Amino acid sequence: MMKDLPLSKVYQLLEPGPVVLLTTARKGRANIMTMSWHMMVEFEPPLIACVVSNRNHSFAALQATKECVIAIPALKLAPRVVEVGNCSGRNVEKFSKFGLTPAPAKLVAPPLVAECFANLECKVADPGFVNKHGIFILEVLKAWIDPAQKNPKTIHHHGYGRFTVDGKMIKLKSKMR
Amino acid sequence: MMKDLPLSKVYQLLEPGPVVLLTTARKGRANIMTMSWHMMVEFEPPLIACVVSNRNHSFAALQATKECVIAIPALKLAPRVVEVGNCSGRNVEKFSKFGLTPAPAKLVAPPLVAECFANLECKVADPGFVNKHGIFILEVLKAWIDPAQKNPKTIHHHGYGRFTVDGKMIKLKSKMR
Repeated sequence: MMKDLPLSKVYQLLEPGPVVLLTTARKGRANIMTMSWHMMVEFEPPLIACVVSNRNHSFAALQATKECVIAIPALKLAPRVVEVGNCSGRNVEKFSKFGLTPAPAKLVAPPLVAECFANLECKVADPGFVNKHGIFILEVLKAWIDPAQKNPKTIHHHGYGRFTVDGKMIKLKSKMR
Repeated sequence: MMKDLPLSKVYQLLEPGPVVLLTTARKGRANIMTMSWHMMVEFEPPLIACVVSNRNHSFAALQATKECVIAIPALKLAPRVVEVGNCSGRNVEKFSKFGLTPAPAKLVAPPLVAECFANLECKVADPGFVNKHGIFILEVLKAWIDPAQKNPKTIHHHGYGRFTVDGKMIKLKSKMR
């Protein structure tokens, strides 16, 4: 059962740079892609920049509907995350093929990914950079966290199927409040 | 002694989402800031997007000179990386204060950080998104790697001075060549 996550905490999920899934929906059909090119742009309301190339099948749906969900998978999903990234929604129903469960979002049409430990419902806040660099600026409208997944470890892509897994967490003195 | 890194490999350094340092130089004075909000935008030539707020002292130098270096620190530098992030170049000479060594870059004026395992000489390739979101699009002109630092572990910021350190690396089948 997913729980609300305050929007002020969203940056803590994405700033570390995990591989994420991005879902879209168009004409009654949902799709998923794997994505590593994303960054935070603003804390609150949370703005995220991400690159979705027009070579990605998700591009047309994201551009047309201006909605998506960013879902964050933990380590146990890594093999499926890679498989999602290795095929195209043009010819694969990825949710069913890879045993991922679409769950209804509250504010957008694209589905949450039930197996992911966090899901962020997003709308395109600024499409002005899409044509030049494929950069979408997203605003997170609602954030969900799965409290059953304790201390999830995320994966980080180094190219050619190599991923580092989160290791230990360290705490250093920060001025940030 | 730093060695050339092919530009085609730059994304492998930044895609995992490490905390990095960004150096600038203006009027004969170099400065450093700590940065986590960055992403790849293109493989080759490598384009990077990053957020440098106009509240950062580095903003004016980056905007005026259109040059910077992105330096990637390994775990051993973590305490200094946090200290660099906790003060401002307005009133601190960060290189000397934190025992970091500026080394001459080849193609840009801002210095490399000798203690970092990788250094990327960058120019601002597109300033068109700066005013709206503080997003600079950088092109990497030259990349350096320190072969003496074997398998460096990077740090990833989770907010409030908490960082995960790279854990094990896993290899999954990828279609990417």
